[in-house]
Amino acid sequence: MQPSEQTTYEILAKIDSPADVKKLSLDQLKQLADEVRRFIIAHVVETGGHLAPSLGVVELTLALHAVFDCPNDKIVWDVGHQTYAHKIITGRRDQFCTLRQLDGLSGFPKRRESAYDAFDTGHSSTSISAALGMAVGKRLRGASGKVLAVIGDGSLTGGMAYEGLNQAGFLNEDLIVVLNDNGMSIAPNVGALSKFVSRSLSGGAYQRFRKELERFLKNMPGVGENLVELARRAEESFRAFFSPSMLFEAFRFNYVGPVDGHDLGRLINVFGNVAPIKGPHLIHVITQKGKGYRPAEENPAHFHGVGKIAQPPATADCGLIPPPKPKIQTYTEVFGRTMVQLAKERRDIVAITAAMPEGTGLQSFAESYRDRFIDVGIAEQHAVTFAAGLACEGFRPVVAIYSTFMQRAFDQVVHDVCLPKLPVVLAMDRAGVVGEDGETHQGLLDLSFLRCAPNLSIMAPADENELRHMLFSALDHDGPTALRYPRGAGLGAHTDEPLRPLPWGKGQLLSDGGDVLLVGIGVGVELCRLAGVMLSAEGVSAAVVNARFVKPLDDELICQLAQRCGRVVTVEENMLAGGFGAAVLEALAAHGLRPKTRLIGVNDRYVEHGAQGKLRQRLGLTPEAVAAAARALLA
Amino acid sequence: MQPSEQTTYEILAKIDSPADVKKLSLDQLKQLADEVRRFIIAHVVETGGHLAPSLGVVELTLALHAVFDCPNDKIVWDVGHQTYAHKIITGRRDQFCTLRQLDGLSGFPKRRESAYDAFDTGHSSTSISAALGMAVGKRLRGASGKVLAVIGDGSLTGGMAYEGLNQAGFLNEDLIVVLNDNGMSIAPNVGALSKFVSRSLSGGAYQRFRKELERFLKNMPGVGENLVELARRAEESFRAFFSPSMLFEAFRFNYVGPVDGHDLGRLINVFGNVAPIKGPHLIHVITQKGKGYRPAEENPAHFHGVGKIAQPPATADCGLIPPPKPKIQTYTEVFGRTMVQLAKERRDIVAITAAMPEGTGLQSFAESYRDRFIDVGIAEQHAVTFAAGLACEGFRPVVAIYSTFMQRAFDQVVHDVCLPKLPVVLAMDRAGVVGEDGETHQGLLDLSFLRCAPNLSIMAPADENELRHMLFSALDHDGPTALRYPRGAGLGAHTDEPLRPLPWGKGQLLSDGGDVLLVGIGVGVELCRLAGVMLSAEGVSAAVVNARFVKPLDDELICQLAQRCGRVVTVEENMLAGGFGAAVLEALAAHGLRPKTRLIGVNDRYVEHGAQGKLRQRLGLTPEAVAAAARALLA
Repeated sequence: MQPSEQTTYEILAKIDSPADVKKLSLDQLKQLADEVRRFIIAHVVETGGHLAPSLGVVELTLALHAVFDCPNDKIVWDVGHQTYAHKIITGRRDQFCTLRQLDGLSGFPKRRESAYDAFDTGHSSTSISAALGMAVGKRLRGASGKVLAVIGDGSLTGGMAYEGLNQAGFLNEDLIVVLNDNGMSIAPNVGALSKFVSRSLSGGAYQRFRKELERFLKNMPGVGENLVELARRAEESFRAFFSPSMLFEAFRFNYVGPVDGHDLGRLINVFGNVAPIKGPHLIHVITQKGKGYRPAEENPAHFHGVGKIAQPPATADCGLIPPPKPKIQTYTEVFGRTMVQLAKERRDIVAITAAMPEGTGLQSFAESYRDRFIDVGIAEQHAVTFAAGLACEGFRPVVAIYSTFMQRAFDQVVHDVCLPKLPVVLAMDRAGVVGEDGETHQGLLDLSFLRCAPNLSIMAPADENELRHMLFSALDHDGPTALRYPRGAGLGAHTDEPLRPLPWGKGQLLSDGGDVLLVGIGVGVELCRLAGVMLSAEGVSAAVVNARFVKPLDDELICQLAQRCGRVVTVEENMLAGGFGAAVLEALAAHGLRPKTRLIGVNDRYVEHGAQGKLRQRLGLTPEAVAAAARALLA
Repeated sequence: MQPSEQTTYEILAKIDSPADVKKLSLDQLKQLADEVRRFIIAHVVETGGHLAPSLGVVELTLALHAVFDCPNDKIVWDVGHQTYAHKIITGRRDQFCTLRQLDGLSGFPKRRESAYDAFDTGHSSTSISAALGMAVGKRLRGASGKVLAVIGDGSLTGGMAYEGLNQAGFLNEDLIVVLNDNGMSIAPNVGALSKFVSRSLSGGAYQRFRKELERFLKNMPGVGENLVELARRAEESFRAFFSPSMLFEAFRFNYVGPVDGHDLGRLINVFGNVAPIKGPHLIHVITQKGKGYRPAEENPAHFHGVGKIAQPPATADCGLIPPPKPKIQTYTEVFGRTMVQLAKERRDIVAITAAMPEGTGLQSFAESYRDRFIDVGIAEQHAVTFAAGLACEGFRPVVAIYSTFMQRAFDQVVHDVCLPKLPVVLAMDRAGVVGEDGETHQGLLDLSFLRCAPNLSIMAPADENELRHMLFSALDHDGPTALRYPRGAGLGAHTDEPLRPLPWGKGQLLSDGGDVLLVGIGVGVELCRLAGVMLSAEGVSAAVVNARFVKPLDDELICQLAQRCGRVVTVEENMLAGGFGAAVLEALAAHGLRPKTRLIGVNDRYVEHGAQGKLRQRLGLTPEAVAAAARALLA
């Protein structure tokens, strides 16, 4: 810390580990909470990051570290994007300025970063399972220490969390689940259960019940004819209303709460009381996402993850300063706009998101076609099979799930969509290198794991205009299609109308040549094009192909050019193992061709966090690297 | 039907569609239930199949078809192995003798087999999601008809079922979930929730509560010191005890039940009453798995799925006749035995199954090491991350999950095991062609989808003895390992002691040669060896390699031989897309080698049901096909 900061952060400046937190009085802890909050805001407006989730759990984090004894006690943070306060008080305060930057602190817990990070997280709903494993492990080896899972109400929508709860209660294991209930996951929460949980949020329960009933009555069509049903539901609501604990007691957890998650004294009391008691406990804590930063409090979904903020606000009460918009449209925006355009003409299109209406660009679709927009919550498995059910009824569902989260629905893609050949479109944003979210969020596996699913077609656009035509084509195709596209701005490509079906399974020859074939998919195409220009300046005649389809692959075009050139370079933002390049090798082998080949992509490694451009440089995903590979084949 | 059968099955002989069921009186329906049950037993002892699950739902099936109007109403059968009665009364009675045979009836629902099969199932816990999709679809297009999901209590352990329940209640959609509660999934059910549900099974609730409390007291060590805790839990149990409906009401379902699932009259009444009421309903039906066939009633886990029974029983009351045992040990048995052997010396080994203690061969491990055996229920996602938690505490978990079900835990493998490089062993039985269970159960994808996970090693044994040494090696390795092996008997290989670590990432040269390299993985190795013998007789000198590792691949050995021979044939029981052969192609390309290559495996198709041997013939997974591929390269 700089000397100037030491006065601004009087107490925080002296916190080098949780032991320092334990020494503080309640008043000092309260001051520390303020300082931590200011510290997070001051840094995240510079670095970008998950502002709202981390601001919501400042007191919770301090209380946990005041009571429990980490790293002997283990805290597993579900999703892990709320761990900024945790990082700051566990010895990483002075590195916090490097958050999410290349070679800097990760925005998520990492075991290799700190002994205080008990488990690597990133995807949601894993914490109870991991913590239960640790608890069983501790019991089996007779080790001391408590195990805690801190999980948001949104993550409870994910089925995996239930699998964990269900077994934890059965085993009667020594485990504390802290339910961080902020009434929303990333977008406002959508499940029946979240309503059930949130019913206990504030006092005046009965008043709220009356209001809820009124709303229910107003929204109910044909109330007159449905009085019996209405009465039944009202009574049902009434019963459930006063029993927030029932659900967790059904899982044999000891339920404690709700507790105000910003009341440090109360949190410390509750944790202190529960800590010595064996068995599974669920402590229900109510927090406010974005707490202490008014723009984030008012619009937490927007501030869930933010880029750098142009004008850092002077105080936590400043107005909303939106992150700067790139001048060129993002793929996400183009996808969202094309969905709206297509849905105007086709009444069979239904859009499905798993708690990411903003992130997937579907916000305006949701506003325009409320009936045909469905947010299933954080529940990717359900999302895909739900889409399969819709397709059985003649609809054309588009399931928009980030590439990395589609991993969670792999079996559903194979078993519920591809096997019965249902015309579901999997729209996978954030495919390839995603940047600052790092290892857990890179979309580098989808081509490999999806390619083995029979009946599935797989496409990736070379630019944002092609994305439009691909989406149109996929909706025109009688079978399942996966469409993957990258995070961030497009190439600034010209947008052409009308939308048209691309020839299925056909690539596009961008420039002809006889010395070497450069064949790219997705963002790899532009690298091939630029490399082709470089090579051309050196007198090398490169054929450049936009493959468009990973499956069915355009064997004919690729084999013909491969035979002519005798040298092939493939380029993709995906793992090399089983990816696009492997598909090209398989096709060449099947056709008995043996050109010289080089595959460019990511070679069997998790990719760390950092700016997209810097990561691509480090990974050799550049035109220069493509040109160098071609030269090596020509040598 | 044969004339003789028409007298034995007086009513069933006239049932050609559900319309015929609707015409029957209650007494006739009861007789039909008996006939259907006899018909199933008579056939399944011949064909093999899922006897117990189908016998349990005979009355339920008849009642559903008596009340609902399929195929306009849609019934989605979760898992789908309980649909024999459904198939028999929906026009497939006379084909039932072909059940699970090549080109015969599937043992699971198939949309292409019948309009009455609303959704293809096989893996568990998908039915609510699919049915909800259909319900939303019907509403959006203003179509008539009810949608039902029939789901077992075991399938409710799967998180995906909760994702579906959660959204169904929120959407307040028109959906009937029939909970088929037989108090077990495949093995006896293990979740806290299943206890909760099953508490309502029989009358005399308070008596049962008292008994439960007594048992609880008896099993509790140190009761004296724990009286407070005991009182708390007793009170908790008491509260939960009388509220089986609470859980589903928390999900905003209208709960009806429990209903005796073998009382046809009562079932028909309940379905008739619920059918006209809009909104989400859960009907809790209690059934007995194996009902009407005493051996199956007494040991339903054993009769879950059976092979042909040597001496078909004359009546439903006959004694237990176990299916014939193959003389050669199965891979499953060898795995189970080796686990017991290893656990004797290593106290850090923990075995985990997802509701398959028998199927995975872990029954005797479970008996010998009760503390270190954990059945998580049908919850593959949780199983894998739970194992990761155990590994964090220094244990060496072995997660035994069939290849096809590992698809459901793909994200957990990538995100929770491989990213933090935790030493978890994934033991994947039923990899490759599995036979009669067909499309949904073939284990043909694992090499492709797992190969892209960084840090993961992947092995497959050439015979059952190698499996033992591989398991030993995997437990000796400091990182995650996947070990895949096939269904059924091994090769009768000699068992050698002591267990030893195989050189990591090294293949085995079985016979040297200079004309063509035959390199196999798993069951592919024996095909290569036999093909090598055939070729040798023709004067062709084939090098034969057992790759052992798909990852890390033995580049050195393979490239050296490939260079010498100039011709390479790869053999695997996996999809060609991204599989073992693709790994070999990638390695050759990376080393700048360009031999002639042929890949043998499964080429981008779902594989139907039928005997393993017949399927392998049809797929060209034979020594003859390997030899032919070699000859083609030599031509």
